[in-house]
Amino acid sequence: MEYIVSDRVKTLKPSAIREIFKYAADPTVVSLSAGNPAPEAFPTKEIAEISNRILTEEPITALQYSVTEGYPPLRRAVTDFMQEEYQVGKDFDDLIITSGAQQVMDLLTKSMVNEGDTVICEAPSFIGSLNSFRSYNARLCGIPLEADGMNLEALEAALKNEKNVRFIYIISNFQNPSGVTTSLEKRKAIYALAKQYGVLILEDNPYGELRISGENIPTIKSLDEDGIVVYAGSFSKVLSPGLRLGYVVAPKPVIQKMVVCKQGEDVHTNVWAQMIAHRFMTEYDFKGHLKNLREIYRKKANFCMDLLDQYLVPNKITYQRIDGGLFIWCKLPEGADMPDFCKQAVLRKVCVVPGNAFLTNESEQCSSFRINFSTPTDEQLEKGIRILGELAKEIL
Amino acid sequence: MEYIVSDRVKTLKPSAIREIFKYAADPTVVSLSAGNPAPEAFPTKEIAEISNRILTEEPITALQYSVTEGYPPLRRAVTDFMQEEYQVGKDFDDLIITSGAQQVMDLLTKSMVNEGDTVICEAPSFIGSLNSFRSYNARLCGIPLEADGMNLEALEAALKNEKNVRFIYIISNFQNPSGVTTSLEKRKAIYALAKQYGVLILEDNPYGELRISGENIPTIKSLDEDGIVVYAGSFSKVLSPGLRLGYVVAPKPVIQKMVVCKQGEDVHTNVWAQMIAHRFMTEYDFKGHLKNLREIYRKKANFCMDLLDQYLVPNKITYQRIDGGLFIWCKLPEGADMPDFCKQAVLRKVCVVPGNAFLTNESEQCSSFRINFSTPTDEQLEKGIRILGELAKEIL
Repeated sequence: MEYIVSDRVKTLKPSAIREIFKYAADPTVVSLSAGNPAPEAFPTKEIAEISNRILTEEPITALQYSVTEGYPPLRRAVTDFMQEEYQVGKDFDDLIITSGAQQVMDLLTKSMVNEGDTVICEAPSFIGSLNSFRSYNARLCGIPLEADGMNLEALEAALKNEKNVRFIYIISNFQNPSGVTTSLEKRKAIYALAKQYGVLILEDNPYGELRISGENIPTIKSLDEDGIVVYAGSFSKVLSPGLRLGYVVAPKPVIQKMVVCKQGEDVHTNVWAQMIAHRFMTEYDFKGHLKNLREIYRKKANFCMDLLDQYLVPNKITYQRIDGGLFIWCKLPEGADMPDFCKQAVLRKVCVVPGNAFLTNESEQCSSFRINFSTPTDEQLEKGIRILGELAKEIL
Repeated sequence: MEYIVSDRVKTLKPSAIREIFKYAADPTVVSLSAGNPAPEAFPTKEIAEISNRILTEEPITALQYSVTEGYPPLRRAVTDFMQEEYQVGKDFDDLIITSGAQQVMDLLTKSMVNEGDTVICEAPSFIGSLNSFRSYNARLCGIPLEADGMNLEALEAALKNEKNVRFIYIISNFQNPSGVTTSLEKRKAIYALAKQYGVLILEDNPYGELRISGENIPTIKSLDEDGIVVYAGSFSKVLSPGLRLGYVVAPKPVIQKMVVCKQGEDVHTNVWAQMIAHRFMTEYDFKGHLKNLREIYRKKANFCMDLLDQYLVPNKITYQRIDGGLFIWCKLPEGADMPDFCKQAVLRKVCVVPGNAFLTNESEQCSSFRINFSTPTDEQLEKGIRILGELAKEIL
């Protein structure tokens, strides 16, 4: 039997990161390639406690079919939280619960993007989202990312010249993989351009609560007066990724189509997980928990940046300091053979992610790689960065 | 802002059943329109016990990111169970865990069906699956369902004449909505036709464990020597639908594409739910539990069929006796105004699902409606069927 696959998946490959994970599974390898939240940040005791109560007090609610839009008390709790804390969500908006924020990328693309239509994204950007767009045969158009966000001239040129642009995808805070936070000025400028050219913005903000320094910057969604921003939120970094819980705030007509698509994809999200998140947000000190998280990640990130300062020779590897998130983007000198550097690192038992994995066109030239500091232990981090520094001195 | 939606969702509507659920939410209405498993069939005590142990013994496994293919111990347990009990799964096959069986319909369509390609289905068929196919702009071709399965002449004609047929969708046991079980002869004939015309079969078997009378018939997948059958299994009826757990057994090249698509949709399925199912299957008396289930549903189904025999006048409403599943398909006399009958029933506070909701073309003429006996209490069932009988006598 010859299996004929659809055009949309013909060129779709498992993400390069997954391939790297195969090396990373070797316990003698120091993996700086993952993106897992720090396990010590999971409120395991509280989740066990809540689960126990749910399964004693209202097991049938947790185990029976539920509605596609999400467990109503959780929808209300997240709606209130996002409005009160971040001014996200206007009268023209609605909020539904999704199976992880990844599903938001999928549902929006399915709802709004025809095959061959264009999605504008930051270059580099999160590979999971890019693959989600690709899986509907969207054409990706990457806009170079600068230290304060997308290059606005390139963005405007793309909006002017690309055909059928449906949305601009942007991770506004502590971007994966670059660590870049888009400045307020650029947020406003991107919003104005989207409005001018009549395209939506998909703002993905999984790391927003993980700020370790500086002041919060208003989300693009909080600036939305015209119903043009779709906001994707996630519980993966603030509660637990294994739950697969995300949410989307978007204008009602967009949400309506996403709900119909979600119904055909998974009917609804695991109910138990939604009940856990609801009780954790409303019966526990959720804001205190977020503060603790930031403390954990502040320590980890600063420890990592200290190691980078200590072990890396600046004219060999440079990096941009971060204000939050889980990733640091390291840059080799222009013209250096980055893929070879990453391979050599693997031979010395350190795994990083080659930067071209995050480009809209993976075969493009790229001199950067991504490291993660939330998954490895302090010892692993020290060993890994020391080896990267030695390697850079030797071969660059 | 004018929201331009993609072609694939333009005509996609929320399922008609959802609209009916709005009436059914009225507590004074007897709803025979749902499809929920009987709550007394959930092993709530065992799930609470297992959950407690998981969250004490291995909370990080439950709460951290996992792999797209599914929690490895559950994949092994389901693979073994399906091979030992049902001879499902050959060397050329693989099995992954999905977020409900609904996701199997979605992932297969995404992987194998281009917009405008044809999916052959039983007419009537499960609306959730039809909407999933529709959401990728598949052309649906319905084959009339007879008491022992699809009409083979119509199936062969469709295979011969329709363009780009990618798969045949079939619910082989106790079909939703018709209750029909495809005979062994027809299973073999459908398999032979699929092989001859080089198309896949998507066999959906959510109700297979709910047989209340007669002998098990081998699944089409167990007859698969050529790698042409994709088998969708579900935990919704044997454990709990709120968990959103399903699985798919299919030839490896098909599974590989489905995995890439799943990665872009929800990364992986809720881990806690997968661990619950794994421990329940391997540490508890899973087969004993299935036997109990059948006992619960046998009582409910027989009670329902007794009521139908008691209250329905045969020349007004007829039905085909079922050997399992959750649904009974009732037929009005040819030419009767079925939509009006269903509306009148709602006015008398009984909800059923009009049969045309399950057709590939909803505007086609249909004289049947679906009732469900697993969700209502015995009292509700008696009241509902009595009212339907009275209504039929009055207006038909």
